[in-house]
Amino acid sequence: MPIFEILSVGEELLWGLITDTNAASISRKLREIGFSASFRQTCGDDRAHLTACLKKALSRSDVIVVTGGLGPTYDDVTRDAVAEATGRSLVFHEETADRIRAFFARRGRAMADNNLLQAYVPDGAEVLPNDYGTAPGIWLETEGKLLILLPGVPREMERLMEEQVLPRLAAQSGMAGCVDVLHFFGITESELDTHIPEDLKNGADPAVAPFAGTGEVELHISAVRSTRKEARQAVCEAEQRLLKDLGGFCYGSGKTTLEQVLVERFARNGLTVATAESCTGGLLAKRLTDVPGSSAVLKSGVVAYSEEMKTRLLGVSPSIFSGDGVYSEACAVAMAQGVRALTGSDFGVGVTGIAGPGGATERDPVGAVYIAVSGKNGETARRFVLGHGKGERGFIRHLAASHALAMTLSQAGLFSWEPEKDGKEK
Amino acid sequence: MPIFEILSVGEELLWGLITDTNAASISRKLREIGFSASFRQTCGDDRAHLTACLKKALSRSDVIVVTGGLGPTYDDVTRDAVAEATGRSLVFHEETADRIRAFFARRGRAMADNNLLQAYVPDGAEVLPNDYGTAPGIWLETEGKLLILLPGVPREMERLMEEQVLPRLAAQSGMAGCVDVLHFFGITESELDTHIPEDLKNGADPAVAPFAGTGEVELHISAVRSTRKEARQAVCEAEQRLLKDLGGFCYGSGKTTLEQVLVERFARNGLTVATAESCTGGLLAKRLTDVPGSSAVLKSGVVAYSEEMKTRLLGVSPSIFSGDGVYSEACAVAMAQGVRALTGSDFGVGVTGIAGPGGATERDPVGAVYIAVSGKNGETARRFVLGHGKGERGFIRHLAASHALAMTLSQAGLFSWEPEKDGKEK
Repeated sequence: MPIFEILSVGEELLWGLITDTNAASISRKLREIGFSASFRQTCGDDRAHLTACLKKALSRSDVIVVTGGLGPTYDDVTRDAVAEATGRSLVFHEETADRIRAFFARRGRAMADNNLLQAYVPDGAEVLPNDYGTAPGIWLETEGKLLILLPGVPREMERLMEEQVLPRLAAQSGMAGCVDVLHFFGITESELDTHIPEDLKNGADPAVAPFAGTGEVELHISAVRSTRKEARQAVCEAEQRLLKDLGGFCYGSGKTTLEQVLVERFARNGLTVATAESCTGGLLAKRLTDVPGSSAVLKSGVVAYSEEMKTRLLGVSPSIFSGDGVYSEACAVAMAQGVRALTGSDFGVGVTGIAGPGGATERDPVGAVYIAVSGKNGETARRFVLGHGKGERGFIRHLAASHALAMTLSQAGLFSWEPEKDGKEK
Repeated sequence: MPIFEILSVGEELLWGLITDTNAASISRKLREIGFSASFRQTCGDDRAHLTACLKKALSRSDVIVVTGGLGPTYDDVTRDAVAEATGRSLVFHEETADRIRAFFARRGRAMADNNLLQAYVPDGAEVLPNDYGTAPGIWLETEGKLLILLPGVPREMERLMEEQVLPRLAAQSGMAGCVDVLHFFGITESELDTHIPEDLKNGADPAVAPFAGTGEVELHISAVRSTRKEARQAVCEAEQRLLKDLGGFCYGSGKTTLEQVLVERFARNGLTVATAESCTGGLLAKRLTDVPGSSAVLKSGVVAYSEEMKTRLLGVSPSIFSGDGVYSEACAVAMAQGVRALTGSDFGVGVTGIAGPGGATERDPVGAVYIAVSGKNGETARRFVLGHGKGERGFIRHLAASHALAMTLSQAGLFSWEPEKDGKEK
């Protein structure tokens, strides 16, 4: 098994201005085809430092994936450092220069000359064309080692990894890996852990690794075999065992999200939904419309913070504000019914509550959120206290939107989880 | 200036199961007292690998901060690796053992014997008592170098850094640092680069480092002086020089965002806004409501994808759809006017366009977005082509929302950038 090393380049990483998500993402992608990284280094935009880091990596690892430092400015030193560490010169790659010129021409913009620095590649390297930005990826086999240089912009790096690097690496190795992800909602990581068979824990193969997301838990199931088909078979068998106990909390598998599952299942069933949001302020609609094709499912969304707007836009009766109050199941129901009537959609979802940091009332702490779903078979409404009464605004809003999505799926009979009725804190 | 290195230990980091937030956090804390990390390594739970990484760090750096691998289980190898790399034996630290026993006693829990492994420290080391967990921090001066070992649990690491490590380091150095960030919109990183004076580039002090965000650019300006006040003064002077040329594109400084600047400046001026979104589908409202206090500024938001909903909710005349079409400045203007009339807000913002992946028309590629702002002084409307005609949905939507925020600020006279009138692609 070749030894892999990841080298992240960027002063902003060493400064702690950004967290290195690229390195973790590369690790996960390598594991999809059966490889693991053994070492990782981070280096700033200093050519001498980076050269030393590269030499170290070349001395101990077989495949080195470098991200960052390929841009057009003075502080992009990866090209030069790789040339120095491998004793190669940089040559001008005419095709890449044309690609960069075309990139600017397409956008109708003048190109600063320094952009052509990105067309220099180490002698003997292959270019991995980058259709999503200007700096190309570079594939350099040198003295029995393989150097893969990728841009630091996450989406450019990810596309190049998926579309070009992984297929090449998989073709070179004789092994094949398979990774699948099961997504759970409504169960905690530690509850879920007690249902994982012992023989699937602790680096076994097939292996199961739990991964706590924001208000959700994922199980990553992986196997490495001599063929992709065998690996996939091993993963499938492990999943069947897991789902026997846990199926009721599992809303999907593979690369998916609650919102994607909702859009897909609603579209398949010809159902539509509309959102009426107070504390989530558009996040619920935003998450639904993140999904391509959501226009067939989301009829409309209304963001209405104030009582005045809830009445004017959604027809919520002012008597609710003076009675149950704006933070109540009654208000959420009226919002859900209001937006459903306004848009003529099959389901209406209403969300009202306290995302914080201010606004807590005597009855409701920060994190108290009321969610209602209205459909032709009636309404479901629940009170949740999200973020343990001291969560941050963004966290509470995300959890609130997730609960709204799960309740809508559940109300439509498309997900078997149901919110508990006793208002337990989450 | 001593050379700092950060070493993160943990197999889960190399697997990409968790992102290394500790390293970024340590970097930021070091910079608060005027230090920068020059190197960073990540190593799995392998004693030989870790020993080699430590030796490398000791050979090139003066201060090495290690996190992780100090726990009580077989895969916690940091103590042993440090002992080996420094040629020291491990000695039992009675006070730490008492502290660990007390930790369990306080919680009324039985202590597994392996916990006392955490009381072994390299000979000659000082112990940094950890009040938030069992593994202590360790401060080891060895052959002119300083090794600082911290637990990997983020909260424990952070407390030890703040309460014990930073004060010790600051006392040893006589220096203080200051960092500020300037945020730019409407200018690319390479354009901006050409306006940075040469003497502020390449690790000078004060130093300027550009960082490209999604459709935005940041300049990080830092300085280290003998007092905090002097460092701040040096940063201010560098900023004044930068803003002479670039001020028109700078929308804020410090830890901020476009949406935060909009909410703050609108609130300060008693202004309100309402959003009418088609392709951004709630993202614009969501970003505004990410900001605490936004309820005073965002009157309401409407998400209306279909022509029917644009007419029913926003009063857009059907003649616009048959005339200019739903993707047009006319439609964006009608949406902006409609939501402004509906809510009685000072400004209305309309966004319509093609976020993709499907939906391109003969006239408009994916990424074509029409944005209009309506205020009491009239309307501004522009066509943009975002994401270079083939950007991803999420990227295009983010850029569209950012342009809408910037145009709204500009229309309100609160940001001097103005969108170009010739419909150039961005």
